[in-house]
Amino acid sequence: MTKILPVDFSFQDDFPQLSRRLRLGIVGGGRIAATQAMAARMSNHWDIAAGALSSSRSKARARGAEWFLPNDRCYGSFEEMARVESRRPDGVDAVMITTPNHVHFDAAKAFLKNDIDVLCDKPLTNDCAQAQELEQETSQTGLVFGVSYVMSAFAMVRQAREIVLSGEIGDVCQIHVEFMQDWMIPEDVMKAEHVKWRLDPAKSGKTSCTGDIGTHAAHLASFVSGLDMTHLRSEMHVCGAPKQLEDTVFMMTRYEGDVPGTLMATRIASGNRGGLRVRIFGSKGGVEWDLEHSEYLKVNIYGRPDQVISRGHGHGVLPKVQRLVRTGRGFPEGLIEAWGNLYTEFAMAVAARRDGLTPPQSWLDLPLVQDGSKGVRFIDAAVESHETGGSWVSL
Amino acid sequence: MTKILPVDFSFQDDFPQLSRRLRLGIVGGGRIAATQAMAARMSNHWDIAAGALSSSRSKARARGAEWFLPNDRCYGSFEEMARVESRRPDGVDAVMITTPNHVHFDAAKAFLKNDIDVLCDKPLTNDCAQAQELEQETSQTGLVFGVSYVMSAFAMVRQAREIVLSGEIGDVCQIHVEFMQDWMIPEDVMKAEHVKWRLDPAKSGKTSCTGDIGTHAAHLASFVSGLDMTHLRSEMHVCGAPKQLEDTVFMMTRYEGDVPGTLMATRIASGNRGGLRVRIFGSKGGVEWDLEHSEYLKVNIYGRPDQVISRGHGHGVLPKVQRLVRTGRGFPEGLIEAWGNLYTEFAMAVAARRDGLTPPQSWLDLPLVQDGSKGVRFIDAAVESHETGGSWVSL
Amino acid sequence: MTKILPVDFSFQDDFPQLSRRLRLGIVGGGRIAATQAMAARMSNHWDIAAGALSSSRSKARARGAEWFLPNDRCYGSFEEMARVESRRPDGVDAVMITTPNHVHFDAAKAFLKNDIDVLCDKPLTNDCAQAQELEQETSQTGLVFGVSYVMSAFAMVRQAREIVLSGEIGDVCQIHVEFMQDWMIPEDVMKAEHVKWRLDPAKSGKTSCTGDIGTHAAHLASFVSGLDMTHLRSEMHVCGAPKQLEDTVFMMTRYEGDVPGTLMATRIASGNRGGLRVRIFGSKGGVEWDLEHSEYLKVNIYGRPDQVISRGHGHGVLPKVQRLVRTGRGFPEGLIEAWGNLYTEFAMAVAARRDGLTPPQSWLDLPLVQDGSKGVRFIDAAVESHETGGSWVSL
Amino acid sequence: MTKILPVDFSFQDDFPQLSRRLRLGIVGGGRIAATQAMAARMSNHWDIAAGALSSSRSKARARGAEWFLPNDRCYGSFEEMARVESRRPDGVDAVMITTPNHVHFDAAKAFLKNDIDVLCDKPLTNDCAQAQELEQETSQTGLVFGVSYVMSAFAMVRQAREIVLSGEIGDVCQIHVEFMQDWMIPEDVMKAEHVKWRLDPAKSGKTSCTGDIGTHAAHLASFVSGLDMTHLRSEMHVCGAPKQLEDTVFMMTRYEGDVPGTLMATRIASGNRGGLRVRIFGSKGGVEWDLEHSEYLKVNIYGRPDQVISRGHGHGVLPKVQRLVRTGRGFPEGLIEAWGNLYTEFAMAVAARRDGLTPPQSWLDLPLVQDGSKGVRFIDAAVESHETGGSWVSL
Repeated sequence: MTKILPVDFSFQDDFPQLSRRLRLGIVGGGRIAATQAMAARMSNHWDIAAGALSSSRSKARARGAEWFLPNDRCYGSFEEMARVESRRPDGVDAVMITTPNHVHFDAAKAFLKNDIDVLCDKPLTNDCAQAQELEQETSQTGLVFGVSYVMSAFAMVRQAREIVLSGEIGDVCQIHVEFMQDWMIPEDVMKAEHVKWRLDPAKSGKTSCTGDIGTHAAHLASFVSGLDMTHLRSEMHVCGAPKQLEDTVFMMTRYEGDVPGTLMATRIASGNRGGLRVRIFGSKGGVEWDLEHSEYLKVNIYGRPDQVISRGHGHGVLPKVQRLVRTGRGFPEGLIEAWGNLYTEFAMAVAARRDGLTPPQSWLDLPLVQDGSKGVRFIDAAVESHETGGSWVSL
Repeated sequence: MTKILPVDFSFQDDFPQLSRRLRLGIVGGGRIAATQAMAARMSNHWDIAAGALSSSRSKARARGAEWFLPNDRCYGSFEEMARVESRRPDGVDAVMITTPNHVHFDAAKAFLKNDIDVLCDKPLTNDCAQAQELEQETSQTGLVFGVSYVMSAFAMVRQAREIVLSGEIGDVCQIHVEFMQDWMIPEDVMKAEHVKWRLDPAKSGKTSCTGDIGTHAAHLASFVSGLDMTHLRSEMHVCGAPKQLEDTVFMMTRYEGDVPGTLMATRIASGNRGGLRVRIFGSKGGVEWDLEHSEYLKVNIYGRPDQVISRGHGHGVLPKVQRLVRTGRGFPEGLIEAWGNLYTEFAMAVAARRDGLTPPQSWLDLPLVQDGSKGVRFIDAAVESHETGGSWVSL
Repeated sequence: MTKILPVDFSFQDDFPQLSRRLRLGIVGGGRIAATQAMAARMSNHWDIAAGALSSSRSKARARGAEWFLPNDRCYGSFEEMARVESRRPDGVDAVMITTPNHVHFDAAKAFLKNDIDVLCDKPLTNDCAQAQELEQETSQTGLVFGVSYVMSAFAMVRQAREIVLSGEIGDVCQIHVEFMQDWMIPEDVMKAEHVKWRLDPAKSGKTSCTGDIGTHAAHLASFVSGLDMTHLRSEMHVCGAPKQLEDTVFMMTRYEGDVPGTLMATRIASGNRGGLRVRIFGSKGGVEWDLEHSEYLKVNIYGRPDQVISRGHGHGVLPKVQRLVRTGRGFPEGLIEAWGNLYTEFAMAVAARRDGLTPPQSWLDLPLVQDGSKGVRFIDAAVESHETGGSWVSL
Repeated sequence: MTKILPVDFSFQDDFPQLSRRLRLGIVGGGRIAATQAMAARMSNHWDIAAGALSSSRSKARARGAEWFLPNDRCYGSFEEMARVESRRPDGVDAVMITTPNHVHFDAAKAFLKNDIDVLCDKPLTNDCAQAQELEQETSQTGLVFGVSYVMSAFAMVRQAREIVLSGEIGDVCQIHVEFMQDWMIPEDVMKAEHVKWRLDPAKSGKTSCTGDIGTHAAHLASFVSGLDMTHLRSEMHVCGAPKQLEDTVFMMTRYEGDVPGTLMATRIASGNRGGLRVRIFGSKGGVEWDLEHSEYLKVNIYGRPDQVISRGHGHGVLPKVQRLVRTGRGFPEGLIEAWGNLYTEFAMAVAARRDGLTPPQSWLDLPLVQDGSKGVRFIDAAVESHETGGSWVSL
């Protein structure tokens, strides 16, 4: 069979031209699936080939038509999709899972069982045991299991990480991250179908805001600093209209090497739209990145003029970052391009696996099932701390 | 034959679901073609189906492989592509033309002749007569002929236009636009293949900077203000290293109703990357948009607090703009999404034509061949003014 | 004796013209004294008339010469200054106290005893009992005792407070404030005379960063929200080079009505210079102010375009704020002008007292000894919480 | 007589402590006089000692009371003031002239004749011959004649100039400056007394906007670039409500070495408050400064990360700039502090002259009568160009 990667490919900086597009299946019928599908197509590494877009077959077909799927590849369930696709010669190479949280585990298992690579939304599962089971399954099968911490795929986030890991800002001594949104302020938004499940413990899990955007924040902080979170203390609040789960969480945190920090996430912060901001301070300098101005990375070395690095080629942008660049400095990229980066790296990982190759760890920054599992543990720790009056809990 | 648009479609605010993806051909092998192809795929309205990506057949195939084109649809010339594709039952519905400027005319003609819709880069041609010929041909054939003034497809540029046309800022009394880039500062960049032709009068035409980014600026100013430019006086400069064509142009301008303005374009402005900024001032207020912060539109009504409208849903974003929105406020979109908007509107226009329908003018803001033709006249006027010591020239 | 305020003055919006400049004495010889003295002169309500600028009489005279003080009004101690000045017919009307923290109490008492109004640096004292004693003394004597929470005197902070108190952002539901500086990163800065005392418990008190900038942050949050802090939990850190007192503090906080919040203060945050930012979120909208961009107030009402109010006249600036405006919108004012505002209000209060009048509470926003006392309690609570592992402590 | 400067002063970087405050007289009764008087007091080098604040003696006294002037130093005319003050042993050392433009010449002459140093508003005069006469008079008398181009006294403007002069951005190849205000949009503002004269040719001279803010822009561009403007072509407009003089001017410009540029000034640009922005582009990089964000200087060297230098000590701020710094980085200064810088340098120049010393040119950046004279020539050239249809006029 034709190799997907070039035969003599050496896992250097640039991503190679694949010999064919990979085939992606969509599990989940919401807006986030649509965003990711656009990004996957834009990346030019994927075609949308099949979907389990609703448990109602007629809805599934209607939504499939949006992606121009043939009827026979619009499935009424992920089980059916996994079974049938795994047997087709042109079956999907991989699936994205963007269902409500409580479905992630079963869906992911079904595809792993059928030898299909997975890119799953966060939080990975609503339960640590399930997360560990997915880790084990992945490890036993050798399949690719990505987790969609998409914020880590912005070019300037990658640049930030490289700068911190290089030691340019000295020893990390404070880590602050916040994800301050405002879209849950109006009461009527909570009645929308795509919002309701996020406030329903049976679907969203033990938390709402913490699991949904808190995990993004936690992953981003660790990704940029290169340090795992080791302890946290948290308190959760319902700051807006009454709801079953928290809309706000504040934390004090500790990272490897006893580095202190804070983490905040809320959906009741008027005027903060994207609202995701990470700041890493070190003994010599600091870096700061803000989702709303995602093209610019502040790098301040104490004693020197402040610096701003902007996505593009040259002007301080590192080679490892430039392979993710599509448009020049000053011509903005955004969230879909970040998703495109994730789907590019996922494509490389899937292609390598199918070709029987193992890329060296340094080559891909794709978040994996282990990262997803840490996120689930983070949620559990946050709940445990909150319920014990804000005591320190280790992760 | 199946209609592409829904049969009962009424050309309201939202764009409809097409019954099939349209097939796009690529003419031109450079980076801008790649950007547009990504965007077309991302829009989900287009598949990349064929290409004339180089006059060398082997290069054409190698580049075609990047878009996973079968060998028989990687053509060695646009003439061949036009002839062959027009006869295939699954032939391309439309082409994008992203060659060096001097090729636009012949390429566009070849596709028009073969009943294939066109989206052509600006400047439309290097010659007014040619531009008029394309206008006539388009008008006679009833084909869709879009011109890729992509800046007008940013959501917040659309919002700006709607605000100005609504009268919210009063009577327009000043129009300023600048496109200040810096990438031509280093001498070695000018030796690159994709740059060289831009400084060669045989390919780029009478101007370099004026035709390339000056026309973008001029179109944007007219698009947002709703006013045609009627007169200009210009002076051109080589501000950086010596070159055959100008790298810098300054203008004083007049628009319909004798509204005065200025226009500047340069590639020797260190620290200005995207560098495109438009400001329209009226008797009651003003709007300002800046490509580097493309998600935000400043709207200042005299006497009130300043306002910032950000792309997304609600919070003042107009319905006509919201149909172009993919991600929520604060989750950035960028240039590729703007291209995606252009390709969405181009798809709607192509689908309507193929279905035998004529969308009302108010429905699409796609720049057309007439706009391209105005751009060519703008270039000629700029040259004439410069050569006569900066005299006023009418357009 | 001539009244200082106009005889028929009615305590409306505008501040009146005084019949004479007031005479200010300086206690303390550092840079903050100089900043305040410049501001007092700029306000045009004060002349610098006397000083206790060092305990060495020769240094006191040298420093007095910087303010062109005659030798006989350059005192070697505040006790002498209080005694002598209170007996001069042209003695000082008031003093500013800008000594290291541990001197505030004795100095303030000396002037209160001699019937001289006081404007004292924060933290008011290093001890709650002392703070209460000053409160009592002030209340018994009827003297004016201002505390220099200067951040509350920026015009746009005043505007923020008025907006929040008016209910425009709905019910306050989150309060975040941070004061993130970077100047203590280099080790050598800690050896400077004006820094050393800030890290010496005998002078600075139980805390360094918390008392110095944490109290600014706490006051600002209460001032803008109109809510007292009721509880806090804190943890203190030495994030930079080793030192006797903390350089960093993180808090979770509660305000009246059980409103939750966070507070952070550090001096080890590279690239954060002024670094003071307050954000108040309510059920309908939010306000945000940032010291580094002090001329602009963000006011976001959910569902509407974002608003920016800029200091000046009109365009949404409230009348109570406009009386503090010196230059038009876009012509920046800064910290010294904020100090000038504080000295203007202090002048009004001093003039009123000397004229035997009591301005209505709504007329002046000058922070008073009670506010200073709350700051001391805040420090004590922070220490108590930190020492008990971050338990909740009430204020 | 006691020297004002220290006897052994060597004109190095830091400004010395004067032995006495200088005495300043105010000529002109408007808001700009008040701003400058505040700044002069704040600088700590000046006391306000006398004034000719109105031609009505009763108004003169009322306004004098605002500055706590004794009645006998509130003059009804500048002639009287010049005559009387020059004979008092405690007479003013210098005057500021902030009258309407047409009074500058006579007032300045009166004080020069009486051996009193002058700081005069721009435009210096309404007539080139008068400007030259003032130049000559100044040169013959050896008096200090400053002109209040205050924008050149912002610390970060000084930093910009030093950077450009050092060659860090290479050879200057483009100079752009704009001063875009919006306060003349409402018709009623034009009826205000302090505005009316600005639109009356008998008082304002041949131009309004050009002379008032255009000259600021022109001086700033030359100051930062280190290059004189040699030629211009201009067109003037009334963009807002009808008025006798222009409210808007656009120019193309040339500077020494045939460097091209543009200059724009208007008062009909909604949302632009301060609206003054200068950009100097060179062969290696560029600098950009914006009055509304006056604390930050953008310095972009091609190929490196963008840099932002912020006013304060260290972090790239040059020693010559630091002597003008009052508050640390991040604690904002503003326009009054810039005026304070001008008054500091004016004080140094006045003190030196009175001590019989001549500071070396490199020590002071105070704009002088020659700079004022260039501004008058700039206005004349702008009018001549406009009246001849925008022809090139040399300065």
